[in-house]
Amino acid sequence: MYGMIGTWSMATLGVEKASPLLAQGQSSGDVVEEAISAIEDYPYFKSVGYGGLPNAIGELEMDSAFMNGDDFQIGAIAGVKDIANPIRVSRRLSQERVNNFLVAQGAQEYAKEQGFEPKTMLTARAIRRWEERQAEVARTGRLTPYDGHDTVCVVALDQQGSMAVGTSTSGLFMKHPGRVGDSPQAGNGFYVDSEIGGVAATGLGEDMMKRPICFETLQLIRAGYSVQEALDRAVYNFVDLLKERNGQVGEFSYIALDHTGHYACATNVDFQFAVATELEKPQLYLAQPQAQHEVKITPASQQWIKEYYTRIQQ
Amino acid sequence: MYGMIGTWSMATLGVEKASPLLAQGQSSGDVVEEAISAIEDYPYFKSVGYGGLPNAIGELEMDSAFMNGDDFQIGAIAGVKDIANPIRVSRRLSQERVNNFLVAQGAQEYAKEQGFEPKTMLTARAIRRWEERQAEVARTGRLTPYDGHDTVCVVALDQQGSMAVGTSTSGLFMKHPGRVGDSPQAGNGFYVDSEIGGVAATGLGEDMMKRPICFETLQLIRAGYSVQEALDRAVYNFVDLLKERNGQVGEFSYIALDHTGHYACATNVDFQFAVATELEKPQLYLAQPQAQHEVKITPASQQWIKEYYTRIQQ
Repeated sequence: MYGMIGTWSMATLGVEKASPLLAQGQSSGDVVEEAISAIEDYPYFKSVGYGGLPNAIGELEMDSAFMNGDDFQIGAIAGVKDIANPIRVSRRLSQERVNNFLVAQGAQEYAKEQGFEPKTMLTARAIRRWEERQAEVARTGRLTPYDGHDTVCVVALDQQGSMAVGTSTSGLFMKHPGRVGDSPQAGNGFYVDSEIGGVAATGLGEDMMKRPICFETLQLIRAGYSVQEALDRAVYNFVDLLKERNGQVGEFSYIALDHTGHYACATNVDFQFAVATELEKPQLYLAQPQAQHEVKITPASQQWIKEYYTRIQQ
Repeated sequence: MYGMIGTWSMATLGVEKASPLLAQGQSSGDVVEEAISAIEDYPYFKSVGYGGLPNAIGELEMDSAFMNGDDFQIGAIAGVKDIANPIRVSRRLSQERVNNFLVAQGAQEYAKEQGFEPKTMLTARAIRRWEERQAEVARTGRLTPYDGHDTVCVVALDQQGSMAVGTSTSGLFMKHPGRVGDSPQAGNGFYVDSEIGGVAATGLGEDMMKRPICFETLQLIRAGYSVQEALDRAVYNFVDLLKERNGQVGEFSYIALDHTGHYACATNVDFQFAVATELEKPQLYLAQPQAQHEVKITPASQQWIKEYYTRIQQ
């Protein structure tokens, strides 16, 4: 069995592009890298890579990570500007013995040393969006709506049984310069073990970094729970605990793929994920939270997808 | 019951200074902040704060984090220069709703905005040490000995039953600029839950970030293991797994304090930790790994401590 899963509607592009590589027998690492790179390159996904959302001072800073489920090697970068494909740098970093997690200028210098293409990642469209938000903040005097923080995450299982996970994001819209979320943090933003499965997160990083739910889910699978039971248990138990102990809970959305190719999603907001497996062609699913921490999953129609692309390209 | 535990011999200074505050009924957060600040200020602890170890280009970059075990609020900074007390900035950040983890320039600007004292943290002594290492690297052509990466971590339990944890380090000596270790990463470098306990890590961050052992230990305590059993199980199972899956294992040292005031240590290298509880005056312990993942713990004599201070001040 082989398969892959990715977060948000944007993952459809990566799953469609990279799932044929899985069918051809390529490695989970290659598949994750190719899927996420395609999403980073696409200008209309507003919270990842090229065309991503600027921070409070109008700069585009990105976070990314890659993890190899065979040997647990991790590569991660955070607070980086003008790197065309953060996921490729993260993966390269995962092959180093030390200095696997680099931030800001140091990460950019590493990318340059390693021959990665620099690219101006801020687009006219993103600048316009930022100017509109600045005007809104000036008008209302408040910076509450940190909306737009969607991270692309991809988990893959290849024909050899190896698994990998990657993440990439421009982080919270209007974030403080230098702000880092959960996406480059192992356990919190992602985790993978080829003998168990892989899990990844998207939502309010500040809340998701309060517990390594991705890791916890794999521990529960190891203990005998199904991938869906394990994810539900890890995610919603913490959502309830955080509400009780901290009074407020941000957006939490997770995807999981186990080492047998079964997948799951848990979310407390409307969410989408894209999947392809040996048994299933690339498919986008809509996930809508219901009462009692249940999620209604329905396949997205061609019409839904068409409207989505129309909307983001406006 | 109240108590506190800290990593390495340097923790003695912090425990002696801050444990009276616990006795007076002050909060675990205050105690962690005061203990670590005292250690950051002391010029002869070579891997933390003032006098810390420079990176590959001779700059001193620091990482730190703070976590509140009542509400899971986290503050963290990484890759920061010239902040007198990183732990104070981390704690302040833990009080924000978002933007809790900041790196590099963005973190330094936040510290300035919040009125934290800037300070040139690189000392003549640290520069001399760096020049010697540069000469050694030039002579041998290799940069293998990344020794000197001791993180100070402090876990505290106060009379009100609240717990907190903090970390502070200059990271790997001769690290790549921008390199971040496990110290600012929740789950991996630290974790605390006032209803269970607190755990913190020091060693090779690149390996320790491969699994959130601090979090895992608390899960095992919750499942019924004693603090020592839980820590041993989490640490050594992963040390063995990493050896099997990745071929090599760096230095792993952990301290834990549970919510009843019992403490534990696990390590695969010679290590020290300092403790003070309601029942025990400040005491430094020497931890020496034995066969079968056991650790021999002996109180450090006054002579040992005297020789330690003589050695670091040379």
